[in-house]
Amino acid sequence: MKILNSFSLKPEQRQTLEAAGHSVIDADKLDDATAQQIDVVYGWNAAATRVNFDRLQFVQAMSAGVDYLPLAELAKHHVLLANTSGIHAEPIAEYVLGVLFTISRGILPAIRADRDMWTLRQERPPMTLLKGKTAVIFGTGHIGSTIATKLQALGLHTIGVSAHGRPAAGFDQVMTDVATHEAAGRADVVINALPLTPDTKHFYDEAFFAAASKQPLFINIGRGPSVDMAALTQALKNKQISAAALDVVDPEPLPQDSPLWGMTNVLLTPHISGTVPQLRDKVFKIFNDNLKTLISSGQLASHQVDLTRGY
Amino acid sequence: MKILNSFSLKPEQRQTLEAAGHSVIDADKLDDATAQQIDVVYGWNAAATRVNFDRLQFVQAMSAGVDYLPLAELAKHHVLLANTSGIHAEPIAEYVLGVLFTISRGILPAIRADRDMWTLRQERPPMTLLKGKTAVIFGTGHIGSTIATKLQALGLHTIGVSAHGRPAAGFDQVMTDVATHEAAGRADVVINALPLTPDTKHFYDEAFFAAASKQPLFINIGRGPSVDMAALTQALKNKQISAAALDVVDPEPLPQDSPLWGMTNVLLTPHISGTVPQLRDKVFKIFNDNLKTLISSGQLASHQVDLTRGY
Repeated sequence: MKILNSFSLKPEQRQTLEAAGHSVIDADKLDDATAQQIDVVYGWNAAATRVNFDRLQFVQAMSAGVDYLPLAELAKHHVLLANTSGIHAEPIAEYVLGVLFTISRGILPAIRADRDMWTLRQERPPMTLLKGKTAVIFGTGHIGSTIATKLQALGLHTIGVSAHGRPAAGFDQVMTDVATHEAAGRADVVINALPLTPDTKHFYDEAFFAAASKQPLFINIGRGPSVDMAALTQALKNKQISAAALDVVDPEPLPQDSPLWGMTNVLLTPHISGTVPQLRDKVFKIFNDNLKTLISSGQLASHQVDLTRGY
Repeated sequence: MKILNSFSLKPEQRQTLEAAGHSVIDADKLDDATAQQIDVVYGWNAAATRVNFDRLQFVQAMSAGVDYLPLAELAKHHVLLANTSGIHAEPIAEYVLGVLFTISRGILPAIRADRDMWTLRQERPPMTLLKGKTAVIFGTGHIGSTIATKLQALGLHTIGVSAHGRPAAGFDQVMTDVATHEAAGRADVVINALPLTPDTKHFYDEAFFAAASKQPLFINIGRGPSVDMAALTQALKNKQISAAALDVVDPEPLPQDSPLWGMTNVLLTPHISGTVPQLRDKVFKIFNDNLKTLISSGQLASHQVDLTRGY
């Protein structure tokens, strides 16, 4: 197979592929003739868009969400696509704990105040206990379920919302998205873990925030465009949302003139929540297993994306 | 009883006491004659030091740690002392989750970088997963045990260290403090939840940090003087300690010229971790129950401090 390296192979991973008889072409060395001969793409970047989709058999993405790939085009050419769903769940869930309790326990203003923080002791920023509170998590896949499992273990009540409404680990209750506004009204904490699809663009809109009657914290570790950013900004100003922690925004990077930068009740991070220790090892293992079964049976071993659903 | 209000009684709490036949004197209105007649002190402040300890029967502190009270003097005059052990455990444990994952998941530099944070995405600050790591918690009382229970539920291995070494909830293992340096060597995270006593002053010293061979995170939610601040500063510079989150320091407030202020691997908060929602209600309930049994039987109902041990 001719494999386009559009991610980051370690030297020993490259050797493993070459020892199995494959040839590896680095994305920055892809010429037009070779682009016509690529069978497999590892990762995804601009070079990958130049390959011949009629020839291409398999793309291994290095992320859980695959919204940035040309899904319709891949489907048309019967290209198999795998994601890395699962490996980001633990890192993202631990990130959620960090931002959640940093906000609820008044740690954020202390960090920002730096040397002036001792005056905060008198002002007593609002601090709540999250034990006993209700977290509503939109998306009950690997990531949502892992977050829910941790929050449930910490004594929060966990409600999941998904398109299908099926039970999932870590959730006290799962509702279908028909009940989205009802769920929003029960939330002390709202967490977005939905995939980005045409159905979930601007899922969090003015009507959603109006339904969030308990002034919840809002956390986005999914995708930025699931949120109507103007509506969120207004909801934060109105205190319909008491605070927000956003690892993803729309667009990224967040423009320097965004009003979110100046808000004391907003914690922004630069799309880091899913950073995985030993990421390259974990992605390669999924890829290499898929490559082997592709050759032996024309199928993927795991992590195949349903191109019509987009996840 | 004549009760000195050295904390903060709500109007309805004062009425409850007065309806039971007690008189309440506010600390800022204490004259010398009345100081001689005080039977009970609620809270503790400068005014309380002026009362006649021969007459004084009972002090209800509003904190878990009582190191700031004249314990020897109280013991000599057979004054009963109660703390509020227990009510701070949940808030402190949730605080620990906030600082712990904010450091481990690379959230702290993003908060500090503010508008410049997007450059961090390229630099990739070190981010670890805490699941599967080992947390060593010094102090296995209410606070230590509550922290341990949460960390254990999140998949960390929890080791407790106490003077007695008895098993406690939330700990996979409890060692006696004879094994302090061995425990330090096993820690990915060190958490101080020890009471401050003559035995625990500068418990965390140069030898302790030298024994911490896995470059742990260090979290102090106990008392500042349990830590030799100079040794900690050096250990942070040496990377014997990879990062520290300090809610308590010695002295407080931390001097403006402390080298800790400028360190990127230090998160400081102004002694807020134990901030309890509805604190006044919770302290008053303990106090009022103690006051009733004091009158009926000369004993306290709960939360009595052993004045020889200091906790």
